[in-house]
Amino acid sequence: MQLTETHRPTLDQALGAIRSRAYWSPHPEHPKAYGETGAADGLAAYQALLGTRFELDQPGTDGWTGGEVSPYGPELGIEYPHPDIEVLLPAMRAGMAAWRDAGPETRALVCLEILSRISARTHEFAHAVMHTSGQAFMMAFQAGGPHAQDRGLEAVAYAYEEQTRTPAAADWSKPQGKRDPLELRKQFTAAPRGISLLIGCNTFPTWNGYPGLFASLATGNPVLVKPHPRAVLPLALTVRIAREVLGEAGFDPNLVALAAERPGEGIAKILAVRPEIKIIDYTGSTAFGDWLEANARQAQVYTEKAGVNTVVIDSTDDYKGMLSNLAFSLSLYSGQMCTTPQNLLIPRDGITTDAGHKSYDEVVTDISAAVGSLLGDDARANALLGALVNPDVKARLEAAAGLGEVALASRVVANPDFPDAVVRTPVVVKLDGARKFWDGADDEAAYLSECFGPVSFAVAVDSTDDALELLRRTVREKGAMTVGAYTTSEETERAVEEVCLEESAQLSLNLTGGVYVNQTAAFSDFHGSGGNPAANAALCDGAFVSNRFRVVEVRRQA
Amino acid sequence: MQLTETHRPTLDQALGAIRSRAYWSPHPEHPKAYGETGAADGLAAYQALLGTRFELDQPGTDGWTGGEVSPYGPELGIEYPHPDIEVLLPAMRAGMAAWRDAGPETRALVCLEILSRISARTHEFAHAVMHTSGQAFMMAFQAGGPHAQDRGLEAVAYAYEEQTRTPAAADWSKPQGKRDPLELRKQFTAAPRGISLLIGCNTFPTWNGYPGLFASLATGNPVLVKPHPRAVLPLALTVRIAREVLGEAGFDPNLVALAAERPGEGIAKILAVRPEIKIIDYTGSTAFGDWLEANARQAQVYTEKAGVNTVVIDSTDDYKGMLSNLAFSLSLYSGQMCTTPQNLLIPRDGITTDAGHKSYDEVVTDISAAVGSLLGDDARANALLGALVNPDVKARLEAAAGLGEVALASRVVANPDFPDAVVRTPVVVKLDGARKFWDGADDEAAYLSECFGPVSFAVAVDSTDDALELLRRTVREKGAMTVGAYTTSEETERAVEEVCLEESAQLSLNLTGGVYVNQTAAFSDFHGSGGNPAANAALCDGAFVSNRFRVVEVRRQA
Repeated sequence: MQLTETHRPTLDQALGAIRSRAYWSPHPEHPKAYGETGAADGLAAYQALLGTRFELDQPGTDGWTGGEVSPYGPELGIEYPHPDIEVLLPAMRAGMAAWRDAGPETRALVCLEILSRISARTHEFAHAVMHTSGQAFMMAFQAGGPHAQDRGLEAVAYAYEEQTRTPAAADWSKPQGKRDPLELRKQFTAAPRGISLLIGCNTFPTWNGYPGLFASLATGNPVLVKPHPRAVLPLALTVRIAREVLGEAGFDPNLVALAAERPGEGIAKILAVRPEIKIIDYTGSTAFGDWLEANARQAQVYTEKAGVNTVVIDSTDDYKGMLSNLAFSLSLYSGQMCTTPQNLLIPRDGITTDAGHKSYDEVVTDISAAVGSLLGDDARANALLGALVNPDVKARLEAAAGLGEVALASRVVANPDFPDAVVRTPVVVKLDGARKFWDGADDEAAYLSECFGPVSFAVAVDSTDDALELLRRTVREKGAMTVGAYTTSEETERAVEEVCLEESAQLSLNLTGGVYVNQTAAFSDFHGSGGNPAANAALCDGAFVSNRFRVVEVRRQA
Repeated sequence: MQLTETHRPTLDQALGAIRSRAYWSPHPEHPKAYGETGAADGLAAYQALLGTRFELDQPGTDGWTGGEVSPYGPELGIEYPHPDIEVLLPAMRAGMAAWRDAGPETRALVCLEILSRISARTHEFAHAVMHTSGQAFMMAFQAGGPHAQDRGLEAVAYAYEEQTRTPAAADWSKPQGKRDPLELRKQFTAAPRGISLLIGCNTFPTWNGYPGLFASLATGNPVLVKPHPRAVLPLALTVRIAREVLGEAGFDPNLVALAAERPGEGIAKILAVRPEIKIIDYTGSTAFGDWLEANARQAQVYTEKAGVNTVVIDSTDDYKGMLSNLAFSLSLYSGQMCTTPQNLLIPRDGITTDAGHKSYDEVVTDISAAVGSLLGDDARANALLGALVNPDVKARLEAAAGLGEVALASRVVANPDFPDAVVRTPVVVKLDGARKFWDGADDEAAYLSECFGPVSFAVAVDSTDDALELLRRTVREKGAMTVGAYTTSEETERAVEEVCLEESAQLSLNLTGGVYVNQTAAFSDFHGSGGNPAANAALCDGAFVSNRFRVVEVRRQA
């Protein structure tokens, strides 16, 4: 493989982008960019996988397991190899020394070849992501394809940069006055920690999986991929491609392997405390994330857990833009993003806008109307909402209507292509930030819990100061992946910035156009901060990669 | 203060050094480099502190505590402020926002001014380190002075580089085909985590303390310094200087404070789990280090704990050089370094040398003779050995003679300047690597435990392969700060390198001259690896600084 000629320029551009943080991506977002027959080929490739055994030729396969059902209805009918980890884990370690000795640049270039082959099959991945996560096709295409590939490439760039901060060798000569200098020849090697375990999630198997997978592989560690049982296919395809590329490049394919689990097996919990597992990347519930952090003490553990995202609404000079921006943010993928705003904090006395003063009720009504209008057309609603990923989300959505006064009821949207898809518009519920217990309801308990799915709380607060205190408390106690704010006051802007700086939350201010608080772009935006309870790591920064390897020094007298 | 003019060139040199890892230091090692009256002034300054109250003017002082006794005999008689942490901790947070807003460069330059003032008082620090650690004067001067300052400066350089990987601001413009591009203005701020707690050690209060102290301060965190109760003075002086410089530079002096404790108070354990404490740096016993890692879950915890350091002796082409190099390594500061070799693994059939074949017994006899000869003269012995730091070390030394056949008995060395100093030469004990239990002795239990102090085990092994397996097991199970090896075989060299790469241990090969396995140089050598049980962090690398702050992003529509 001509790895250097093909991929070194891309690596260099990625290294430039993570330093400039300007816009950059080598992965086209438009489905038409993948060739005339790209769409048809991708669909055909996806369909050819259905109802088959997904062969990986990895050691220690002791059976087959599967059972994915698309949130759009159809069963995928794919079976994956089930691992005997007593065989698979040692086999994964066998190729470590050669992979380590290849050095940071070769590892990075091999990772780029893997990403490049994934990119070429973006249409196929789009269907795989759509039918495991419930994302609408266009989102599955973009977030599951180019955006995920960008995040993977970003991790490779950080890993390369981190490993090359120290030179491979150095001559050290210490003057000794009139005597001869002391002289040493030193070698520095980026040495991997051990097997890295990726515990995938249901909603963004590739986007949330690629950073950890590629950060660990690029730093020399074998990676065992444990997908969410409902979202195996996108990561199984990834593992297959990685194994192919590794083998073709002369490395052991077993450096990347799949650990599909049997129903109820809980293989993540078993693997997480194995002594061979030295790194864990996890996206999912706070309960299991906390368990991993407390129990997988032999490993470096990177977690993205639940959080409660807030938008502070103080004032705006573009009321219409704010409403349409928020409506889109609340609707996209039925609120099933870890970055979707949940609590909209609105002063009970209303806000100042370019369209005049708006009372709390008016703001809530107008946001609800904007959502209703955005999703009024079923075709557009389906394209934005996708399907509810699992029955738990539907149950939460239905329960949310009982938590307070419903400003906007959820609507059932029919999907003509997939009649079994569960498609629902968001519910907007009014809560009172000053009301702890009222008539059997507990507003505070509601807005201080993550209600993952298409549920928004319009929380009335006494003032913007009150909103900032609630924001601070929410981030500190519950964590947040995103914070949004709308204000025309410089003082308020500074105050909300200060809360976010002190509580370590990523802030979007006055978004009224085509960028949404729940979207972050690789190479430029940080996803999470790693400094509040929602996640102990950010995508992507030095800390995400620097402890995945250690520098081992060998020094000799010169 | 003209911080930029004075210190920016030094910072730039440090940034260059951590990338080239060539020899560099701005801090002179020779006592005469500190001016004609430097030595006398330093001694006088130290003596003026004895028997006084050490005023710091920090908030929340609720009493005075002290009780340091020099390992050389005299009581220091110094009292330090005891903190009411309910008052002190909030006071330390008050200046955080201004310190954060000052930015990475100003913080780095203020840290360099602190180090520069410490450097100017190196003679005073030398006496303070000598009379708390028991190091001999020259070692206290060099390791406690310039070498410690180097390690502090190195941490500042890493912190600066890490914080400036992301620009302070970026414009992001994403093309949208024929439509206007999406445009955002982004700000990135290195935001501190919270109060950083430094838990100092007895033997190297400044050398082991400065990396964490300066890494945290340079990344925007207040630092609370909790010295070892027997080694308060060097860190109290450091805190006083830091407070002075911070105040003069217009920052809150309370960003650095001292937490001296009353006898038996155990204040480290109380502080370590306080919610305000977000970072902990610790050097000391494995038991308390493990406790911190398990319990101080609200904090980033960096620990250097115990380890068992090994030297593999396979063959040499400079037998005499090997003997004298090892003798020095075993003797320096009475083996009270975390980097001192403990186990010398020697094939029971002997080794090949330039002086002919040497049997196991001959090698052990010759090493013992080299130690005896090095320390034969009392003046030289005192200059190398220093004093035993505390009675536990003496007890361990005495017990070690009962663990096996004594090849070299420890000798009592008189110190004419300090008759109460406890000065002892190392004991060398023969053990058998193949013998688990024998005649009531348990060789394996002995050589697989850290015996901190002037105790060396000459362990007979069946072969070099056997030595490598024992080395691997020792590093994996017990950890190691250093590994040494002597061999003329390229194959053996590669094999020992491979063990060190796989088990993450820092290796010195064939040292026969004036560099010793127990010495590491800032800007070039890593101290520990962070990848084996002896320490979860290395001095100094990206991982040591990158999680002490988080990058908080604020983005706005452009």
